[in-house]
Amino acid sequence: MTKLVVIGGNAAGMSAASKAKRRAPDLEVEVLEAGHDISYSACGIPYLVEGTVEKPSQLLVLSEEDAAERGITVRAKTEAVAFNPYTKEVAFAGPTGRDSIQYDKLLIATGSSPRNPFPGRDLAGVFTIRHVGDGVRLIRHLRESDTRRVAIVGGGYVGLEMASAFLELGADVHLLARGERLLSSMDPDMTDGLEEWIEEQGITLHRKADVKGFAPGKTPGGLGRVEAKNDLDVDLAVVAVGVEPNTQFAVKAGVHSTKTGHLLVDDNMHTNFHDVWAAGDCVAARHLVTGRPTPMALALPSNRMGKVAGDNIAASLSKIPAPSMSFPGVLGTQVTRVHGLAFAQTGITETEAKKEGMDPVAYLVESKTKAGYMPGVADMALKLVAEPGTGKLLGCQLAGPEEVALRINTAAVAIQAGLTAKKLAEVETAYAPPFSPVYDPIVVAAAELAKLVRK
Amino acid sequence: MTKLVVIGGNAAGMSAASKAKRRAPDLEVEVLEAGHDISYSACGIPYLVEGTVEKPSQLLVLSEEDAAERGITVRAKTEAVAFNPYTKEVAFAGPTGRDSIQYDKLLIATGSSPRNPFPGRDLAGVFTIRHVGDGVRLIRHLRESDTRRVAIVGGGYVGLEMASAFLELGADVHLLARGERLLSSMDPDMTDGLEEWIEEQGITLHRKADVKGFAPGKTPGGLGRVEAKNDLDVDLAVVAVGVEPNTQFAVKAGVHSTKTGHLLVDDNMHTNFHDVWAAGDCVAARHLVTGRPTPMALALPSNRMGKVAGDNIAASLSKIPAPSMSFPGVLGTQVTRVHGLAFAQTGITETEAKKEGMDPVAYLVESKTKAGYMPGVADMALKLVAEPGTGKLLGCQLAGPEEVALRINTAAVAIQAGLTAKKLAEVETAYAPPFSPVYDPIVVAAAELAKLVRK
Repeated sequence: MTKLVVIGGNAAGMSAASKAKRRAPDLEVEVLEAGHDISYSACGIPYLVEGTVEKPSQLLVLSEEDAAERGITVRAKTEAVAFNPYTKEVAFAGPTGRDSIQYDKLLIATGSSPRNPFPGRDLAGVFTIRHVGDGVRLIRHLRESDTRRVAIVGGGYVGLEMASAFLELGADVHLLARGERLLSSMDPDMTDGLEEWIEEQGITLHRKADVKGFAPGKTPGGLGRVEAKNDLDVDLAVVAVGVEPNTQFAVKAGVHSTKTGHLLVDDNMHTNFHDVWAAGDCVAARHLVTGRPTPMALALPSNRMGKVAGDNIAASLSKIPAPSMSFPGVLGTQVTRVHGLAFAQTGITETEAKKEGMDPVAYLVESKTKAGYMPGVADMALKLVAEPGTGKLLGCQLAGPEEVALRINTAAVAIQAGLTAKKLAEVETAYAPPFSPVYDPIVVAAAELAKLVRK
Repeated sequence: MTKLVVIGGNAAGMSAASKAKRRAPDLEVEVLEAGHDISYSACGIPYLVEGTVEKPSQLLVLSEEDAAERGITVRAKTEAVAFNPYTKEVAFAGPTGRDSIQYDKLLIATGSSPRNPFPGRDLAGVFTIRHVGDGVRLIRHLRESDTRRVAIVGGGYVGLEMASAFLELGADVHLLARGERLLSSMDPDMTDGLEEWIEEQGITLHRKADVKGFAPGKTPGGLGRVEAKNDLDVDLAVVAVGVEPNTQFAVKAGVHSTKTGHLLVDDNMHTNFHDVWAAGDCVAARHLVTGRPTPMALALPSNRMGKVAGDNIAASLSKIPAPSMSFPGVLGTQVTRVHGLAFAQTGITETEAKKEGMDPVAYLVESKTKAGYMPGVADMALKLVAEPGTGKLLGCQLAGPEEVALRINTAAVAIQAGLTAKKLAEVETAYAPPFSPVYDPIVVAAAELAKLVRK
């Protein structure tokens, strides 16, 4: 019997295991998961903390029993520590100690972990957010100690979602940003005024906070001190300063990777080793706009990469060449809710395009969310970025009230279809007074952008 | 000085006049408008009636003074009754009687009027909805008479919006549909259960109502009787059984038209007569999916056609050939809100594809609006239709709570970009628990549809 070993039982790993087993029912599939749970919604943790989601179990997508029904064996709390691509052996540390396992086919889907480079990171009140267990521990900590003042280190998507969650809980929230700006993955003109707005919501913003570490304090149960430009006494701290791939063992084994340690794969998610695939957050897949290997810790691409890997693993069992799925690439479509506002982006920003050495054209339109005479009409901003000369769309960003969030998908399709600004400006979007102005903001931005395209 | 006469001062007419004047500032532009107001939002009238929009003036987009500032002369309450393409003369009836006007360039943008073929249509309590004045008269009637029971004749988009408006006002609403179904522009599987839901909201639905006319009643101020399969005593009736183009005078003058009287134009909105253009609801423009001339009484295409016509009229003044805009065609993207629900469609339905002689493939997905564990998660339905063999997308329909309405634009871009179901299934849509499931319903539907495509 042929054996597939999957290292990592979350989005990519379980998608791959399920897909491979569906296509090749005879395949023996074993999943090693370092954590307690397989296949959970990490993106739901902020809503668990704020109490919008009631039970941690609601975030679990698939249980070990579900996996077993699909014919997949799961070993939880089992961390791969090394593998040998020549002897086809994976060494791991599990509940019963160290051991090893043979594979015929291997998938590395170990994901990424939150970075926390600060001294004092192991103190009781310091948290990062990745596993459902992190949310559970955080909630328990809140319940068991008198948490009033909270520090969020990091002003990106996750930092803002966590700040928003603690605001919902009535905490005294301090947001410590590395630079002057929040959400610096977006262009500055798209987040203009965000910092002031965050402060108006009641969050204390510390710009250029220069966090140095954490130190125990005098308050019983509380964390103590965040050592920063201006030291801050808090009861709890959440660190959200980005993620790093869990790939040390794989890189050590010789899997080709980027400088950041993300594994390199082809469009079938195959690595440089025979019978070894990789998928998910631990991978740098081809970016649809830049064409370069780019890590993207996002749920949808991770699930898809897993599916593609599983399909190709199953296809590799066939003695004659069999058709198989290929991964289209990553676009970086993402959206976040911050205390009633939505921020979203897809493709690349103007800043990123410039870093790529392009001389992009860009247009930012400020628009109403719906007909100006309708109650509840609000402001929104939408920015399009395109290649000079051709006008081919490179990226879109938007900001506004929650209901505008999914307008980003309109841009995602346009970019992935290779449309020019001129062509997007011709799209017949929907209009009704409760939903949109006659000319949708994306159409307005596209038409204006088309004018800027240098012939 | 060259003179452009525009017949019709609404979306298409005023867009054309403004665009022509901008491109050719020396052009003399005169607009003849049959009604009282130019450039108003007809789509806003239901919200005026229900009181969501407070003042009728809020629906006016452009005043005569605004037009004058742009160098455009408007003659309101002036109805074109004939024109001669050889002598270049338009005869009209205005506030001071009959007269005529010479033109060098002519644009016909007379729009459409609601059909009301029923005897008794001139009775005081019978309304159709087109001009802002209709809304004003309706509101005045409501104020001056004791309106309790209302009949809405017609179960399409406008009928449902008006039924919803009267429900907001607390009226006893009777909806009289010609057939068994409501919203019959959508496929039956997309509106499954709509009729029962409408009744649950408190609207009395009369299917196959077979309306014969209106008769005066005994109630002072009230309308009287709607003569139908089961006669109905009501205080007020709104007729919403579709529109017909205001083109009799143009057809008589020899402008080529469809059997329904919609004018035929090329991609520059030019008719068969030299120096005569047409734009807006009175026109049958090329459908982007079927390629056939198709009338489409929608705000965005009307505005666009006007812009294209204005640009071409201005370009025609140039002695050497000058580049000019062309109209991409109509797609039929539309959306409506019915008492908290949204229904939307773009392209063609499965039913329409079959009528076109195709043997389409279709897939309807029932999905959650967001992550299943988030509060407020609701059901939505989304259906995609594609060409067999190629899998090229033909249309999309969706139904769900209000917040899903603009997801239709994602499909509109995909269809207009010529994407196949397989390609749409690869699009990286946005995911965050408050906004969407990991796999967006449109991606799920596209992936399933791709499997149905016959090779």
